[in-house]
Amino acid sequence: MAKQKPRTLSGFMELLPGAQMQMERMMELLRHSYSLYGFTPLDTPVIEASEVLLAKAGGETEKQIYRFSKGDTDLSLRFDLTVPLAKYVALHYAELSFPFRRYQIGKVYRGERAQRGRFREFYQADIDIIGDGQLDIMNEAEIPSVIYRTFTALGLRRFQIRVNNRKILNGFYAMLGLSDRAADIMRTVDKLDKIGPEKVAALLTGEEIGLTAEQAAEILKFIAIRGTNGEVLAALEGYRGRNEGFDQGLTELETVVENLGGFGVPEENFAVDLTIARGLDYYTGTVYETTLLDHPEIGSVCSGGRYDNLAEYYTDRQLPGVGISIGLTRLFYVLGEQGMLNPALPTAPADVLILPMTEDLSPAIALATALREAGVRAQLYTERKKFKAKMSYADRLGVPYAAFLGEDEISRGLVSLKDMATGEQRLVTPEQAAQIVNERVVAGRRVAPILEG
Amino acid sequence: MAKQKPRTLSGFMELLPGAQMQMERMMELLRHSYSLYGFTPLDTPVIEASEVLLAKAGGETEKQIYRFSKGDTDLSLRFDLTVPLAKYVALHYAELSFPFRRYQIGKVYRGERAQRGRFREFYQADIDIIGDGQLDIMNEAEIPSVIYRTFTALGLRRFQIRVNNRKILNGFYAMLGLSDRAADIMRTVDKLDKIGPEKVAALLTGEEIGLTAEQAAEILKFIAIRGTNGEVLAALEGYRGRNEGFDQGLTELETVVENLGGFGVPEENFAVDLTIARGLDYYTGTVYETTLLDHPEIGSVCSGGRYDNLAEYYTDRQLPGVGISIGLTRLFYVLGEQGMLNPALPTAPADVLILPMTEDLSPAIALATALREAGVRAQLYTERKKFKAKMSYADRLGVPYAAFLGEDEISRGLVSLKDMATGEQRLVTPEQAAQIVNERVVAGRRVAPILEG
Repeated sequence: MAKQKPRTLSGFMELLPGAQMQMERMMELLRHSYSLYGFTPLDTPVIEASEVLLAKAGGETEKQIYRFSKGDTDLSLRFDLTVPLAKYVALHYAELSFPFRRYQIGKVYRGERAQRGRFREFYQADIDIIGDGQLDIMNEAEIPSVIYRTFTALGLRRFQIRVNNRKILNGFYAMLGLSDRAADIMRTVDKLDKIGPEKVAALLTGEEIGLTAEQAAEILKFIAIRGTNGEVLAALEGYRGRNEGFDQGLTELETVVENLGGFGVPEENFAVDLTIARGLDYYTGTVYETTLLDHPEIGSVCSGGRYDNLAEYYTDRQLPGVGISIGLTRLFYVLGEQGMLNPALPTAPADVLILPMTEDLSPAIALATALREAGVRAQLYTERKKFKAKMSYADRLGVPYAAFLGEDEISRGLVSLKDMATGEQRLVTPEQAAQIVNERVVAGRRVAPILEG
Repeated sequence: MAKQKPRTLSGFMELLPGAQMQMERMMELLRHSYSLYGFTPLDTPVIEASEVLLAKAGGETEKQIYRFSKGDTDLSLRFDLTVPLAKYVALHYAELSFPFRRYQIGKVYRGERAQRGRFREFYQADIDIIGDGQLDIMNEAEIPSVIYRTFTALGLRRFQIRVNNRKILNGFYAMLGLSDRAADIMRTVDKLDKIGPEKVAALLTGEEIGLTAEQAAEILKFIAIRGTNGEVLAALEGYRGRNEGFDQGLTELETVVENLGGFGVPEENFAVDLTIARGLDYYTGTVYETTLLDHPEIGSVCSGGRYDNLAEYYTDRQLPGVGISIGLTRLFYVLGEQGMLNPALPTAPADVLILPMTEDLSPAIALATALREAGVRAQLYTERKKFKAKMSYADRLGVPYAAFLGEDEISRGLVSLKDMATGEQRLVTPEQAAQIVNERVVAGRRVAPILEG
């Protein structure tokens, strides 16, 4: 028969078992961390009606959509988890309680140009808190705590949560009489890290934006405010009293900074950074980016912010919220590239491989059943292979323990338990075997999936 | 602004938070149960190249595929998890160890006619064991154990794993000289439960299949073999010696039955059933169906079997395997319809809702942080609402505990912990609060998601 060459589409991540286990552990830690803050899991369809999903979209986003017809229905694959959330909240409004906190870890689709490290199918791991009409600033203050706990649970220490407030930026531009050009200016200022202050000044005073040299200098001076959080806030206090929005944003930012300690976020993992604006237009208050200190080239690995109107395309209700998103597939890929996936994380499919050495398999089956009852992941190897082939299989699986059952062990009701790492072999009861293996499993649970260099 | 009416496509399940939590718990139990047998998790793309995904498909299946183009690539959404597994194993053969045991819980897509309880996007929860060239019968004997442990973990007791062997059926039809018509006959016999023996006999002797009355009677007599597993096997022994395949199948079936006890499967949850054939043509050995005794109308909720050639469309390698699949979305829907989702399963997004009663929120924040450090899912409620509105929110969330922090509690370093079910309120330290809440959580973990009537 003619064979079809098997392949996986480019831009679609498909992991080998060991790597998949790493990814699963990361997802498990995300779910746990998000849950500690009272976020409830949601799962929405991957396919939505195009008119619903694209109610807001346009331009670049729309070009990337996987859109198609089935019968006479115009369908699209979701390109993020925010639009489906907006639809969900608008649709199920009456059945939800607000503030509504949800997390969602799911695949989204963007038909981007194929490129190394760019994915067309990728996981996003989002949390959002949605208020009904209003939402207290303390929710914004809590977000850095979620980020901090999540990233430390994954094994990261050298990261920084960078925070700004859009009201401060908007207020500042209003002071300069540049409100109408604020969006263009912020997009330009956003390039500061990449192109440097001279080129930013040139762009600001260029034909398109058309600022005066004084205005450009004011802006560069403003976004150059640096220092400890206290120093930055003190410098910002110097601008207070000139614009109401600015003052409100500054008070909000101060609230966020003041409560960091209470929320368990160390000062060194947090920085007020006036250059952060976030591209999306709908952010209206606190905005967040998270960078790995040793890998600034990766950019932000967790971003988000406060918005005033989640579902304005679906409902007249004012639904303000705050949320963040981790691009999990890209993060996982980058961690792998950087050699930061912890090789000490247990990734074997089983904790013990049972190798029967007799024709009669029933003692081995009974042992497997007993170990599973005790919560041990036990695989029974029943293929009729030579001993060497069996051991080689155990090695390749990477199981921490092999359990041998020969005539001698069976007659004494014992099992030979071999530690595959040390080679040490002990004759123990099935109960002891379960205990030894489970202790190793518990220790393995403490290994973080990410290892910093 | 004109609003787009929010809606979710028909045939796509979208759950409210409480139900979603039920579903998450079921998935968690499936992952755990599958893991105990050494199955490793896999995650393959939802989208595949059409020529790869549809290498085998045709007829009914192909009509249901979501197929579309993006750029000049012909794409399809997966319609099951077996074809992607075949592709995966053929593609990554050199990097896998055999027997290869994987589980996958993922969404698949079939554009079926919209109908109540029929889904176009639905989860399948599959396990498969793939051998390289050969695979021992003991793997087939182990599958009922996986099914039993999985369903009991979900909370079911009144279910039956029904097992047959295709070699027995094929061998029996060969004895009658009906091998060429065996497929048609089995399809007809499969309708026995629905239409009864008379109508089956009429179909068998009808123009299309054209058996003699004697042949039809032989077949009906054969599939009418009933009784305990021992009785059925004894009756089958009466046919031994007339066909090699039959004899082999009978020996295999006896091996499966003999080892049930060792694998921890009670006799009452298992039945040899000669009427089971499974529609798919590629099953070649043991076949499985699982029915809920009180809800036979649902049909099989977990099915599968042994096949000889997983990836024949992609590779010349012989890759025999055995696998089962749970149609999770449909099962969840049916359980809901039958009122079998356990209302005692904790589904609140948090274990404790912290309600600050003072202007200064820092003691409440510190409490939230301390509780989270202790592993408690703690939500901080900081909206400026009246006490009654706060309590009503706690009620609607269904949190088991509310924690009040007023001046008095703060000054004494204590917290008022209210059991929302009993109304009992206790003044305790934060450590005591964590302990009380965690004990409830541990108890809640023992509640099964399914409750039998």
